[in-house]
Amino acid sequence: MDKIIRIDMATRTAREIALTGKNCYLGGRALTSGCIARETPPSCDPLGRHNTLIFAAGPFAGTPLSSGSRLSIGAKSPLTGGIKESNAGGVTALVMGRLGIRAVFLEGLPLPEQGWQVLHVSPSGVRFDPADDLCGLGVYEKAERLVQRYGSHVGMSLIGPAGEMRLLAAGIANADKDGEPSRFSGRGGLGAVMGSKKVHALVFEAGGKMPEYADKDAFDALYRTLVKPIRDNSAIYRKYGTAAAVDVTGDFGALPTRNFSRGSFEKAADINATALYRCIEERGGEGRHSHACMPGCIVQCSNVFADAQGKKVCSPVEYENIGMLGSNLGIASLDDIARLNRMCNDLGLDTIETGAALGVMMEQGVCAFGDAGAAAAILEQVRDGGPLGRIAASGAVVAGHIYGSSRVPAARGQAFAAYDPRSMKGMGVTYATSSQGADHTSGSTLRAKTAQTSVTGQLEESCAAQEWSMIMDMLGICMFMPGNLPSRDVLAELAVARWGVPLTLDDLYGAARAALREENLFNDAAGVGAALRALPEFVLEERNPDSGQVFDIPQEGVDGLARSLREEGRSAAALFDFAPLA
Amino acid sequence: MDKIIRIDMATRTAREIALTGKNCYLGGRALTSGCIARETPPSCDPLGRHNTLIFAAGPFAGTPLSSGSRLSIGAKSPLTGGIKESNAGGVTALVMGRLGIRAVFLEGLPLPEQGWQVLHVSPSGVRFDPADDLCGLGVYEKAERLVQRYGSHVGMSLIGPAGEMRLLAAGIANADKDGEPSRFSGRGGLGAVMGSKKVHALVFEAGGKMPEYADKDAFDALYRTLVKPIRDNSAIYRKYGTAAAVDVTGDFGALPTRNFSRGSFEKAADINATALYRCIEERGGEGRHSHACMPGCIVQCSNVFADAQGKKVCSPVEYENIGMLGSNLGIASLDDIARLNRMCNDLGLDTIETGAALGVMMEQGVCAFGDAGAAAAILEQVRDGGPLGRIAASGAVVAGHIYGSSRVPAARGQAFAAYDPRSMKGMGVTYATSSQGADHTSGSTLRAKTAQTSVTGQLEESCAAQEWSMIMDMLGICMFMPGNLPSRDVLAELAVARWGVPLTLDDLYGAARAALREENLFNDAAGVGAALRALPEFVLEERNPDSGQVFDIPQEGVDGLARSLREEGRSAAALFDFAPLA
Repeated sequence: MDKIIRIDMATRTAREIALTGKNCYLGGRALTSGCIARETPPSCDPLGRHNTLIFAAGPFAGTPLSSGSRLSIGAKSPLTGGIKESNAGGVTALVMGRLGIRAVFLEGLPLPEQGWQVLHVSPSGVRFDPADDLCGLGVYEKAERLVQRYGSHVGMSLIGPAGEMRLLAAGIANADKDGEPSRFSGRGGLGAVMGSKKVHALVFEAGGKMPEYADKDAFDALYRTLVKPIRDNSAIYRKYGTAAAVDVTGDFGALPTRNFSRGSFEKAADINATALYRCIEERGGEGRHSHACMPGCIVQCSNVFADAQGKKVCSPVEYENIGMLGSNLGIASLDDIARLNRMCNDLGLDTIETGAALGVMMEQGVCAFGDAGAAAAILEQVRDGGPLGRIAASGAVVAGHIYGSSRVPAARGQAFAAYDPRSMKGMGVTYATSSQGADHTSGSTLRAKTAQTSVTGQLEESCAAQEWSMIMDMLGICMFMPGNLPSRDVLAELAVARWGVPLTLDDLYGAARAALREENLFNDAAGVGAALRALPEFVLEERNPDSGQVFDIPQEGVDGLARSLREEGRSAAALFDFAPLA
Repeated sequence: MDKIIRIDMATRTAREIALTGKNCYLGGRALTSGCIARETPPSCDPLGRHNTLIFAAGPFAGTPLSSGSRLSIGAKSPLTGGIKESNAGGVTALVMGRLGIRAVFLEGLPLPEQGWQVLHVSPSGVRFDPADDLCGLGVYEKAERLVQRYGSHVGMSLIGPAGEMRLLAAGIANADKDGEPSRFSGRGGLGAVMGSKKVHALVFEAGGKMPEYADKDAFDALYRTLVKPIRDNSAIYRKYGTAAAVDVTGDFGALPTRNFSRGSFEKAADINATALYRCIEERGGEGRHSHACMPGCIVQCSNVFADAQGKKVCSPVEYENIGMLGSNLGIASLDDIARLNRMCNDLGLDTIETGAALGVMMEQGVCAFGDAGAAAAILEQVRDGGPLGRIAASGAVVAGHIYGSSRVPAARGQAFAAYDPRSMKGMGVTYATSSQGADHTSGSTLRAKTAQTSVTGQLEESCAAQEWSMIMDMLGICMFMPGNLPSRDVLAELAVARWGVPLTLDDLYGAARAALREENLFNDAAGVGAALRALPEFVLEERNPDSGQVFDIPQEGVDGLARSLREEGRSAAALFDFAPLA
């Protein structure tokens, strides 16, 4: 029987609660958002004692299901002021699944006299290990120290200097199967929440055992039927990773370029998937054009980028980072991008938020577009708490205030991901209506059937993507896994085999709608959910020169979708019909 | 017949609109807020082309009524995201009244290729004078240049470097009767809005004539009856200025000390009213312990602070500045406070917002409490756009983000004035419910009959103060004038004598409630009006050691007041029953 662990930071005590009845089915974002919506005071200070940071695995975590061990980290976000779930790969959730731990709650704040800690979670309980000595270390070195202390196959989630300083762009790093701490729960400033609790890392002891199944044979059989379609569908990802999107978004004018002043980059050929693949292959050494972030993943969209000497710089270099640290900054060198990416990782910073902030700063003349050295020098200041570094590490909106800019690519407090909403209007609808701020993972329409610049159909595309993302996130499944499933019903069938309860795809949709509703109502109660024009004025009025588009989805439609995401819908069904986890 | 002037910044054209019918009665904050609520899109970018900056005089401006020529400046605030009226003395409104100009609207943005301008307003129209040469000048030097260009008796409102840089703590300075540009419309970042329009200054030609009256004899008779009560009531102000409040608030633990960590300052005797009076008197020279900011003022709460050589440093040094730049920073020297005050003035910064930001920064270790030199060095950076200066000039909330602080003394985006809401609970109610953010001028309860720390009665005190402030602001009367009126009815009687229309005190209250309602509904539509806990957590949970208090007014009560301020009330009555000023 799986359990959750509630850790009280003030008393340094942990309490285990067995998941019984319908609570068994709760996982991932449904668990984080459900518990935050019901337990966390919406008006609380995100860095104060009433905010709870929740690490949740999905129900398939630890099983061999490909891409089925994603981690959801949730809290009230200091960046958006609303509810947040930040989702990552790596092995944290997998190890949790093997330990039978569905979730860990970090509640309250330590007392003022208490120092920094590492929380070590094992079958024998939670240990509070003093760790003041780790203060100020970069994520890479901190992870190495943790491996020395706790072993190389642990699951671990950790913060860097930015999180320690409680900066708004701070994320939480998760180690991958190679111990590389670069699978980021980047968005929403959750690293600052972890920093407010003075926790450097949450470490899960390696080992444990495979989760139990109601019908293991059925589960295995289902899983085996998925291998081929997943493999067939992910060939591009395996070869090029997500960088394949550089040409795609550039083609329709949605590749952020120089602080979203253009939608395609004249030097895109230097940083696109082909260039990346060729560079990695030619250099050899530690570089890998394909790489799995968790064991058993068939998609393997990750990579390892090596320098000219073949030495690993950063894993992975992916689309968002190429977009936000590359074209958005006018930087056309993969080496520069990888270096900035590694710096962000090491500082424990969200690359998207930081790239957007740097874009705003460059446009305001802090340094020139294309000047990677200057960008690196700004990031280097983060480590010492220098003001320029703090500004970049506080995200696009704060940087916009500091530099008096009206061209801030952000919605609901959070920077756009690497998709210009003028040229990719479904994504714009997601930015404007998602409970998660401008977050591509909460409802990506990159694969929408509708033309990206069409006005019609985008509300429906965004709504469907938001529902589907929630289903993936509540099941702990990577959004790249089910791209070409024979039928989406198989997800419900997997759940049935896991638990032995009757569940249909319709039930999953019902639960997803219920969870989306709770997230949005939390935001309303927090005062950040009102359905007003969330997109910045330049997106509505300044044409993207490469697509010729503004974001022109009628506001009534956007408002209507926002309302419908708050409506009481179908029954929440098993997966979200949970009793208090007290 | 008075008029308004609408200036379109993009086309550089001005349009005059005569105030006819009931529109004649509209002035001050009723005019600014009424027009913003009806014309400005609530979701617009405060620094974008849809925001309008309105300068409005009250209906008595230019008459000899003591303290009757206050200026209201209004816009959507870049600091709070809500509606804002920022109110100041000086002679701008007086000169407007003499020119028959009730208000000037700055609409739209200049085209990108257009440079900086001074707008010169005279009976022959509006002139757009190129003024790129004034860029970067401090407010004092800019004002001197303007006097050289336009004469010494003009009315003028101008911004400093902070406004040019569109920083959130930027205010608008107004020259007083001596040409000193230190009567600040400080709050809400309206200087940034003026900066976004690339307007250095709005200059009103001196001269004009006394406003017309329906019954001049009655007006003069009424006015004469007020002289003695005003004079009798304001003896303390005339001797000590607002600094008299240092001992008052310190006594009940509401004097902000070291970033609101205490409510009384152990060195208060060095910076209180007695110390200030003695210092000014002993030094002589240009110093004045009493001073009028506009001609004819009987109260004369202002002063001129001189250095040891008797040379003027700053006029005035007043309570808010002593609190926010003195005790709140642990600074116990009037010379240091006056110097920081002058620096803020010269940069065009709100002393309250800047003092609060510096307090947050000091608490986070940027420099030590009490280190006036370090504070000055930070402010000096504003001039060159250095990052530390920009942070301090972006206000308390942004500074709190940049330094990861949860102890940020602000509500609804704006810093507390120099009153701790734990020890002065009526003011806390105003901070939490006012349409203006944490703004003491929108509903001060300093003179409330209820004990300041009592839980009961504060909602009523705040509500009454918010209504009364609105009446003062819509009439353009200084809040210090009517402290001891024989009867408040005299305000309506003055209006009757001015216009010859039947008006009662009840009508004024009706109009005030209607205007407050429109302000709050604007904020709701802008997404910043929701009646949630607006006060920061530390105020609710950390006892002020000097009063032993937290802010413990029940939230239901606060919510109830917020709701009632949105209710349709009595008829708006003549003063707010206006037709579109198109």
